[in-house]
Amino acid sequence: MAAAEVQRPVQSTKYGENMTNGILKSEHKPSAPSGKGTSQDEIQLVLQNFRILIADLCEQFNMGHPGSAIGMAAMGVALWKYTMKYAPHQPNWFNRDRFVLSNGHACLFQYCNHYLSGYKAMTWEQLLSYHSERPDSLCPGHPEIEHEGIELTTGPLGQGIANAVGLAMASKHLAATYNRPGYDVVNNHIWVTVGDACMQEGVGCEAFSYAGHLKLTNLTCIYDNNQITCDGSVDLTNTEDVNKKMEACGWEIIDVEDGINDVDGIVAAMEKGRDPNRTKPLFINVRSIIGVGSAKAGQAASHGAPLGTDNVADMKKAYGWDPSKKYYIPEKVKEFYADIPARGDRWVSEWNQLVEKYQQAHPELGAEFQARVEGRLPADWNKLIPSSFPTENTPTRKSNNYVMKDIVEQINTFMVGTADLTPSVNLTYKNYEIFNPPDLKPISGSVGSYKGRYIHYGIREHVMAAIANGLAAYNPGTIIPITSSFFMFYLYAAPAVRMGALQKIPVIHVATHDSIGAGEDGPTHQPVELAALYRAMPNMHYIRPADSEEVAGAWEAAVNYKQGPSMISVSRHALPQTGVTKREGVKKGAYVVREEKDAAVTLISVGAELHFAVKVAEALPIKARVVSFPSHALFQLQSKQYQREVLRRNENIPAVVIEPYVSLGWERYADAGLNMRSFGHSLPGKYIYDYFGFNVEGMTKKVEAFVRDWQEGAIGRGEFADLLEPPSH
Amino acid sequence: MAAAEVQRPVQSTKYGENMTNGILKSEHKPSAPSGKGTSQDEIQLVLQNFRILIADLCEQFNMGHPGSAIGMAAMGVALWKYTMKYAPHQPNWFNRDRFVLSNGHACLFQYCNHYLSGYKAMTWEQLLSYHSERPDSLCPGHPEIEHEGIELTTGPLGQGIANAVGLAMASKHLAATYNRPGYDVVNNHIWVTVGDACMQEGVGCEAFSYAGHLKLTNLTCIYDNNQITCDGSVDLTNTEDVNKKMEACGWEIIDVEDGINDVDGIVAAMEKGRDPNRTKPLFINVRSIIGVGSAKAGQAASHGAPLGTDNVADMKKAYGWDPSKKYYIPEKVKEFYADIPARGDRWVSEWNQLVEKYQQAHPELGAEFQARVEGRLPADWNKLIPSSFPTENTPTRKSNNYVMKDIVEQINTFMVGTADLTPSVNLTYKNYEIFNPPDLKPISGSVGSYKGRYIHYGIREHVMAAIANGLAAYNPGTIIPITSSFFMFYLYAAPAVRMGALQKIPVIHVATHDSIGAGEDGPTHQPVELAALYRAMPNMHYIRPADSEEVAGAWEAAVNYKQGPSMISVSRHALPQTGVTKREGVKKGAYVVREEKDAAVTLISVGAELHFAVKVAEALPIKARVVSFPSHALFQLQSKQYQREVLRRNENIPAVVIEPYVSLGWERYADAGLNMRSFGHSLPGKYIYDYFGFNVEGMTKKVEAFVRDWQEGAIGRGEFADLLEPPSH
Repeated sequence: MAAAEVQRPVQSTKYGENMTNGILKSEHKPSAPSGKGTSQDEIQLVLQNFRILIADLCEQFNMGHPGSAIGMAAMGVALWKYTMKYAPHQPNWFNRDRFVLSNGHACLFQYCNHYLSGYKAMTWEQLLSYHSERPDSLCPGHPEIEHEGIELTTGPLGQGIANAVGLAMASKHLAATYNRPGYDVVNNHIWVTVGDACMQEGVGCEAFSYAGHLKLTNLTCIYDNNQITCDGSVDLTNTEDVNKKMEACGWEIIDVEDGINDVDGIVAAMEKGRDPNRTKPLFINVRSIIGVGSAKAGQAASHGAPLGTDNVADMKKAYGWDPSKKYYIPEKVKEFYADIPARGDRWVSEWNQLVEKYQQAHPELGAEFQARVEGRLPADWNKLIPSSFPTENTPTRKSNNYVMKDIVEQINTFMVGTADLTPSVNLTYKNYEIFNPPDLKPISGSVGSYKGRYIHYGIREHVMAAIANGLAAYNPGTIIPITSSFFMFYLYAAPAVRMGALQKIPVIHVATHDSIGAGEDGPTHQPVELAALYRAMPNMHYIRPADSEEVAGAWEAAVNYKQGPSMISVSRHALPQTGVTKREGVKKGAYVVREEKDAAVTLISVGAELHFAVKVAEALPIKARVVSFPSHALFQLQSKQYQREVLRRNENIPAVVIEPYVSLGWERYADAGLNMRSFGHSLPGKYIYDYFGFNVEGMTKKVEAFVRDWQEGAIGRGEFADLLEPPSH
Repeated sequence: MAAAEVQRPVQSTKYGENMTNGILKSEHKPSAPSGKGTSQDEIQLVLQNFRILIADLCEQFNMGHPGSAIGMAAMGVALWKYTMKYAPHQPNWFNRDRFVLSNGHACLFQYCNHYLSGYKAMTWEQLLSYHSERPDSLCPGHPEIEHEGIELTTGPLGQGIANAVGLAMASKHLAATYNRPGYDVVNNHIWVTVGDACMQEGVGCEAFSYAGHLKLTNLTCIYDNNQITCDGSVDLTNTEDVNKKMEACGWEIIDVEDGINDVDGIVAAMEKGRDPNRTKPLFINVRSIIGVGSAKAGQAASHGAPLGTDNVADMKKAYGWDPSKKYYIPEKVKEFYADIPARGDRWVSEWNQLVEKYQQAHPELGAEFQARVEGRLPADWNKLIPSSFPTENTPTRKSNNYVMKDIVEQINTFMVGTADLTPSVNLTYKNYEIFNPPDLKPISGSVGSYKGRYIHYGIREHVMAAIANGLAAYNPGTIIPITSSFFMFYLYAAPAVRMGALQKIPVIHVATHDSIGAGEDGPTHQPVELAALYRAMPNMHYIRPADSEEVAGAWEAAVNYKQGPSMISVSRHALPQTGVTKREGVKKGAYVVREEKDAAVTLISVGAELHFAVKVAEALPIKARVVSFPSHALFQLQSKQYQREVLRRNENIPAVVIEPYVSLGWERYADAGLNMRSFGHSLPGKYIYDYFGFNVEGMTKKVEAFVRDWQEGAIGRGEFADLLEPPSH
């Protein structure tokens, strides 16, 4: 069967009729060569082998996800053998096609294809380590970015399609910026497979809608339409017309009816993906059968558990294979894949020659391109940060603009974006250009092109963060994405921010309107508990700078940090320039801004409320030192000695933290806290701090009383004292 | 103009031509009576008044969101005057129509309509308190559930549409369960307004897709299609064909071309919503103009800032109003709304009579209905919890099923659901019926009806939690929703879980596969930092029970908690029945399970790892006590005295916590921790604890060494000691 471009609800396709184990009873096995010159018999052998190999791999430790991977066999052959441009022996080739397995549980699909197509790290021994006791396995339960050939870690559903959109945006942007007539130095294609889950998850829906808007013709999404989820058939929970919805989102649709056998049809559809005359991203709706070939074909039971010894033996028999042979790969199958590494090396070498000529023809651009490929920033990038700032009261969201605007304007590496809060987050810069399709003519009159580096993500925080992961993962250091929204809405984005932290992807998130200072928008918009999440998240540097000087330090720390994301958390409202802060201090996480030899108390504060601590210290009748504490994560990286010098708790000086978030996490550093103990309240900025007890006079009294209690022993050792009560109203 | 059922991309509509300030230059003001018997002149007066009132209210403190509320004036008249069945003087009438403002920033739209239609609490003085310094204002920056007539708090975008789906499901379910021929005791309609943001946000997309699947004919979504977001025109970021997408999702579409003046057209569309012969939820695409009537009409500038004194004056002049008059409401406008309270009281009284007859005709059902209306559970509901459990090793996800299955089976109040993890979360019960449209015939053969109380949410965690908020908010205690997924995916659901906590909505979330024990699925599925979020969240009771007995305690605590959501966090893997646990102890958050008078150390542990602490205490050569600590939140509610008895830190006994989450939050209770300091790793359950150092022998040595250091003073006071290092691999 050839790929059909008929557009209709694929749910109407009946499967299971005239089938045994999902295999057509009258299965066609023509011996005529396929369109690719290989006989259909050979293709069938390869497909059978692939399915059996996966079934065997799940049997060995009686664990794993066989079903989807088995059902996707033909898509694998189409991708790795016939369609993708990549080089297994040079897996980091800059212009390679990228592949993302958004349905990450089907990881064996990717591992087996990597093994067969000749990735060096994926040895036979490694392939067998799936779900073994080996901590150094390259075959974890979901694909992980650390391993050869894996572009991004996937698993949490819907993330991968969003990551792929990011990769496609990166490719479009680099092509628009660096390609010149005759020199398409960036022209790769992005392939992503999705299951039914990715189609349902909100982040997937955001990604589809946005990718259609962006007209990402270099993106092809292959839908493994097996109509089965854990709970049973998809139509138990989802009866939408998928193709129509995708069309409405601006995608071109191709249906493939027989996704089990029709390699030619899938290849033909994929070749359409590469067609330079297309104007939309491509969605290939491939009708497949989960666990095909086994007695559990078409059943949810084949999704997350092995098929069972007997079933696997029966499956082999049905294909005419010897059921006693395990992990068997016939020579013909090996031959089928044998030419792939050499083919890849040829592609790389052709590209290297092209780039060499390009750099001769366009020396300046070529040098910049080379720097991007190597992920190099100008050595003196941080000289673009002002050495001093206006002394008037300034919202740190504006300080943030002072600090970053020249960096972003002058260094092409940065791509800035916001989830529809341009007027609020203050991230624009001189002559910024919008990233958008060049033929878009919005009513607003704004125009853009793929050269643009300012991204309007729409009201889609989750996909913004997931796309940023894709932009950054395109190649290390080539793009540093900056996202922005209100801090509270980084809860919407949190699953993707976490994935960035897990993958150690350097993205800078600018979170504005932090703390109750967000004011009259009320408790829905006032974060009180969210910092606990980001302070708890491994590899994440959450930084709350107190004023312009500290914002400068936050940016130096964030741009220099290559092992994960940073979040710079800034205020909506104007803050005084304290005059006591130092950008160098921020990089250490915490530092002393007011020292007293014989102090009776240490006041710790952070971000928008540091100025309170400075004033309370001045107002207190006892000697008080003050520590500015912008980042837990950065402070944890310092030596024990430095930590003690800053906190001096070993000298029996109690510490009190001032921050209108809940105390959770501060107990490590402080003995008492002036913290939120409830959600916030809708009150304008000038009233809200007072309402919750954050005023200098009140806090001074509370601290004084606490220190007296502490000294008199009324407060037990190790008992963190909550000094504020929530308002009774 | 009448409502047109033409289906086509609304983006194609051109607006702005032939208009001044968004008002048609040749504005039709026919004096003929509208379809509803009111003259068009009068309607225009009401609309003008509404817009001017909102403009004035934003001027007073120079803050607020005027634009959308102004643009929606006609929708307000259609809803509160002509369409909704409600009773302002009996705002909690059980069978009232529900209204949700998903575009919550347009809160003045609702406040002004409440004022005009006669809600008692919404006095003139209260209306003027919008953005004032009054903490007791009923007009916060977004609508809040605590206040009369507000069904749910909204603001974070997309939540409201999901909540409305929950309300519509509740209504469908109660109608299917309790209505009898001639006695439609539940037949209300759910109305929700959305802006462009709700259409873009992932949670909104999930909600639309699921509501279409469910065929919620009692749900009407009114799209305030003003084509403007903060960043400019919508087509800057979204060019999808909204109507086509909504059709693909199973909605019926009606377009209203002139959403500014055409009250009759909007009313006609809404009346279609009530048509009992419909088979789909209704989407009314109303073309409106943000900030209409002002010089900022159609501009993003009117979204989140006042229009400005001069603009407001000009707006009044253009309408022929006296620009010097502020907050003016002509008598004719008052008259227009005057009959609403009495009309509402009549509806309530008719309904009361119907229910009385129903209860006579169907005494048993009527009594049950009454209990549901009053939100009463059977007094002895907790007797349905087994008093003892099998003693073999059991995953607490299975213990959870032992505990809840009879409660849920026998008490109709509970509605259980999962985001496509039925085989994993173990929440089914005897003869459970699926909640689904009665005419759905899924391939899987599963059938359902609206009477069903088991909800397949699809792979949509976020909307699951938001829908649960809607189900629970339908009426206090009438439905107790139970959601379930892997704990890690409660990060996807977190924004909605938070909204439940903020609103003090009792929902029980069952989070399975907690801790690294999730095993081979790897770090994407292993929560290490997520508990910090839920432990930090006000009003949330996060409970990690250790075995079957503690699961029993967790359920008693959760069902009895009426002031917010609970999360019961259970294991994938089998755990020993420790024999030391007590369900009563769980309710106190923490309690002693092994006491020693002269203890040298307290071991704290929780959930799936409590058994480690018990064994370490036995293995230690020093005297060790053990505290089971399932819930921070519940422990914080106990007296200081009880807390000291449990922890005994004031007796100079150091405490060490054992939990494979990051330590954040434990520093309040412990001096040292055996905790995760990185993300997890893909390893089968039987290897993973060992890999990270959680084995009895190793932990015993670490604790012993720590206590020695502690006693010798090598560890500074207040310095939390991290006893485990992340593995070097």
